[in-house]
Amino acid sequence: MPENHNIASTLHPRLAEDCIVLGRFPLSLVLLMNDANYPWFILVPDRKNVCEIYQLSTEDQICLQHESSYLAAQLAAIFSADKMNIAALGNVVPQLHLHHIVRYKHDPVWPAPVWGNLPAIPYTSDAVENIRDKLAKTLKNGYTCL
Amino acid sequence: MPENHNIASTLHPRLAEDCIVLGRFPLSLVLLMNDANYPWFILVPDRKNVCEIYQLSTEDQICLQHESSYLAAQLAAIFSADKMNIAALGNVVPQLHLHHIVRYKHDPVWPAPVWGNLPAIPYTSDAVENIRDKLAKTLKNGYTCL
Repeated sequence: MPENHNIASTLHPRLAEDCIVLGRFPLSLVLLMNDANYPWFILVPDRKNVCEIYQLSTEDQICLQHESSYLAAQLAAIFSADKMNIAALGNVVPQLHLHHIVRYKHDPVWPAPVWGNLPAIPYTSDAVENIRDKLAKTLKNGYTCL
Repeated sequence: MPENHNIASTLHPRLAEDCIVLGRFPLSLVLLMNDANYPWFILVPDRKNVCEIYQLSTEDQICLQHESSYLAAQLAAIFSADKMNIAALGNVVPQLHLHHIVRYKHDPVWPAPVWGNLPAIPYTSDAVENIRDKLAKTLKNGYTCL
């Protein structure tokens, strides 16, 4: 599948290893972190050699803000979040990526941030397809399921 | 000082306790986290009853994006950052606030995120005034020192 091959080749190897590509918005790929502890999604703007949000063009920054807020609001609704955690860290993976993590007051590390707290629990393929399907049915604003 | 009183009254008590108000952009207050472990700044949009970025109006979201990227780029330059960490978490303090943390490859918890890792080291008043001064001299785009 050349399309997926192209997408994978734009991702940092660590993102490609830890995540599953679900789809894309006009600017950003939408990844699912392969960790069933939390519904955890990542936007990766499809731009080369960018490590910080401020390095994107102004137009791309506005587009990323729009995609991020839309995704966060939709995820909060789909997964009945108590809180969304949005973060661009990138201390380990330099490629710009924006975490969108659905948090619950009853999740295993609440209220701590999720990073470095628990070993990842990989999803079953059925669970991944279920999430892919939910997003495909719900997301608009130029979202394409991949 | 009624001006400062008004500002403090718009802040969640935990932000008022943990941080020092340095100034403001047109939309957001600029706070310094009182923790000398890292140069750690927080933008707080001056809007009531907002917990998530997507709850701001589209205009305010674009303004916050602009203020955040400007602040991040300036902090990266002023403090010679290796990486900026930008995050809206809010699991403990519901009032919308956006962390801007200057990270170094040699800082005490790199590459882990900063939250919950080290006890805060309060700044001396001289150190705070030094940072306030640096920002006052460098930041433009509607920044006012408070």
